[in-house]
Amino acid sequence: MNAEIIAVGSEMLTPQRIDTNSLYLTDQLNAYGVEVVYKCVVGDDRALLTDSIRLAVNRSAIVILSGGLGPTEDDLTRDAVAAALGVGQTYHPDVFAGIEGMFARLGRKVAENNKRQAMLIDGAEWLENTRGTAPGQWIRTANGVVILLPGPPKELTTMYERTVRERLVALLPKQALRTRWYRVAGMGESDLDQLIAPVYTRYTNPVTTVLAKAGDIEVHLRARLDTAEAAEALVNEVGVQVEALLGDRIYSHNGDPLEKTVGLMLAARGATVAVAESCTGGLLGTRLSDTPGASAWFRGGYIVYTLALKQALAGDADGAAIAAAGVVSETTATVLAKAAAARSGATYGVSITGVAGPDGGTGENPVGTVWIAVASNQSVTARRYRFPGDRGRVRTLAAQSALDLLRRHLLSEKG
Amino acid sequence: MNAEIIAVGSEMLTPQRIDTNSLYLTDQLNAYGVEVVYKCVVGDDRALLTDSIRLAVNRSAIVILSGGLGPTEDDLTRDAVAAALGVGQTYHPDVFAGIEGMFARLGRKVAENNKRQAMLIDGAEWLENTRGTAPGQWIRTANGVVILLPGPPKELTTMYERTVRERLVALLPKQALRTRWYRVAGMGESDLDQLIAPVYTRYTNPVTTVLAKAGDIEVHLRARLDTAEAAEALVNEVGVQVEALLGDRIYSHNGDPLEKTVGLMLAARGATVAVAESCTGGLLGTRLSDTPGASAWFRGGYIVYTLALKQALAGDADGAAIAAAGVVSETTATVLAKAAAARSGATYGVSITGVAGPDGGTGENPVGTVWIAVASNQSVTARRYRFPGDRGRVRTLAAQSALDLLRRHLLSEKG
Repeated sequence: MNAEIIAVGSEMLTPQRIDTNSLYLTDQLNAYGVEVVYKCVVGDDRALLTDSIRLAVNRSAIVILSGGLGPTEDDLTRDAVAAALGVGQTYHPDVFAGIEGMFARLGRKVAENNKRQAMLIDGAEWLENTRGTAPGQWIRTANGVVILLPGPPKELTTMYERTVRERLVALLPKQALRTRWYRVAGMGESDLDQLIAPVYTRYTNPVTTVLAKAGDIEVHLRARLDTAEAAEALVNEVGVQVEALLGDRIYSHNGDPLEKTVGLMLAARGATVAVAESCTGGLLGTRLSDTPGASAWFRGGYIVYTLALKQALAGDADGAAIAAAGVVSETTATVLAKAAAARSGATYGVSITGVAGPDGGTGENPVGTVWIAVASNQSVTARRYRFPGDRGRVRTLAAQSALDLLRRHLLSEKG
Repeated sequence: MNAEIIAVGSEMLTPQRIDTNSLYLTDQLNAYGVEVVYKCVVGDDRALLTDSIRLAVNRSAIVILSGGLGPTEDDLTRDAVAAALGVGQTYHPDVFAGIEGMFARLGRKVAENNKRQAMLIDGAEWLENTRGTAPGQWIRTANGVVILLPGPPKELTTMYERTVRERLVALLPKQALRTRWYRVAGMGESDLDQLIAPVYTRYTNPVTTVLAKAGDIEVHLRARLDTAEAAEALVNEVGVQVEALLGDRIYSHNGDPLEKTVGLMLAARGATVAVAESCTGGLLGTRLSDTPGASAWFRGGYIVYTLALKQALAGDADGAAIAAAGVVSETTATVLAKAAAARSGATYGVSITGVAGPDGGTGENPVGTVWIAVASNQSVTARRYRFPGDRGRVRTLAAQSALDLLRRHLLSEKG
């Protein structure tokens, strides 16, 4: 079954506004096997909106509109849907009483023009808005349904979850949904795709989605079958193969970000971490402290942007070694990681030192060259990276790679 | 003159993908007085795409498509535009030579199916793609223009700036555009709007746009008139009034981010800064080192997430004062800011210590309470804040407020 989504309102056509409602609705609809084939944003233009609705209703069984349900002349969605369906609207005193109740909860009084919001399209059921004042509407048509939802995302999502999802599911063929969600670090999107495409392209069910950000890839599998057991067996059949190929590059099976995975590994060992950051300037510390409760594993650290601060952290003897080896070197990364742990009393120290650019590159260490080290008083891992992209991307990839190097160091100590 | 934007590709209809190209294009078009009246996302469906293009071309003078220009059977944009306009396509060897050149620059070889990309819609000019391999197309129609651009944002923006903008401006009624761009810290969006709305609502030209992020507001004025002098006079008339109301809350007149403004102020004074961060965990250091060349003013600093690290930074006597006053206090903020400057040899130290939440709040210091201090060996500014929102928002607002407090401290020393 297909769906279309129409966002209404001239303010949604400005350079600043993103129609996040359609992303939320697409996710909800996809989860039940409904494909979104078209979405659009229409300004406050009666003819254009009416035409868009008419086309959508003729093409797709499910049409969802967001916005344009307010009390003013500019709020055209009700009128346009009624015109597109060729039906009238009727004032419902009970809906108006409901609107008065919503206003009362917000400590406000209704105005005369709020009566427009109590106009129901003929054949519609009204949908209560518990987060705002504009009611929604649900209209069964000959070959599907048209759903009117309010524009503010909190109002839309709440109304969808309270009153729409269940009604929609009742219209759909009965199917059970089972999912797998992997997060992967330490490889590029095309490398990952080459590795697992031979598996997932053999299946149209489950549907596989690969979503890549800098140094961080998500793989979603969604299987739909008649029973929960059959869907689970199918998603498992594919999931096992994907897991075998990706191995310990999978850092999360539940959507946790990498910093949380690392934090939980540290907490499980009763261990703590401190950082020494040069080119990232505090970004690794920011991520390690992003998770609530981070004080259980994160001590803090040292932003050693200058040579003098690197040497002050390292102490006299190691400071001389830094000067001799150069700031972008295995020696410097190792010295800084060890010093971060020793100075802070943390179990592990993690260091980042490199050339984020755009200036500062050399023949030996071009822009994007970064050394990262993880050290405890038992062992050291140090690695040289060469990251592509601009300053922001190099810094993002360096922090992500440092978290992943710490994760792998912890894994290697497990046995 | 009106425009419509069509994004092509089933991947753009997934829950994860935002059509950022349309935001960029809307901003560009608005700047020249062109209004975007409709935008849509269409999957890889030949009939639906052709219908959408036909409707758009009939309604609006400017129609821009993004995506669907690749070499595969799924890339339908060329075919759909030709069908919608009722014209044919012709293979152009010179365009194919250009594509071969683009591949060569990327160190790759063309494949047989890349010949599809050298098919030009009859009447089209081809647009070179300097960032990728899919050429764009520019087609004049009876009442306007249809423009085909590649989907990847970097390719699209580069092609627009290099080859499209000038062509488009030549089609538009001659008007001069003059702008003002203010960035404002230290006040909320509604407070700012209450302050300046009495000015800007008196003018429909210039158009005023207010864009708010956490603790950071942009105000754009765009005036259009027949001559550059008249447009400049008009935007100046409104700009002077806005500047008078906002005063030194304006930190940038050219779009520079706050960290760059602060960096330039420091560099102009030959001064440097170091940080001591608790609840932000390195976020202030990250922002101070975000700007290329930050080593001219940023020394580094100390991530003092634990009490022990705060005390180690402060030294024995001040460490005792921290324990006595509590970590979220004026004393602690001041001690940390002074110690950050003294230890690193920086002119200024900036400290942040507070409760980012969700746990750790007390009656005296509820979640969101943050002390920030700026210290040099001449003077200290310390201030208590109470930030709304979740952990991420509190941390973002704390780093932003620390940068702004440093800016105001520097301004106050100027005289």
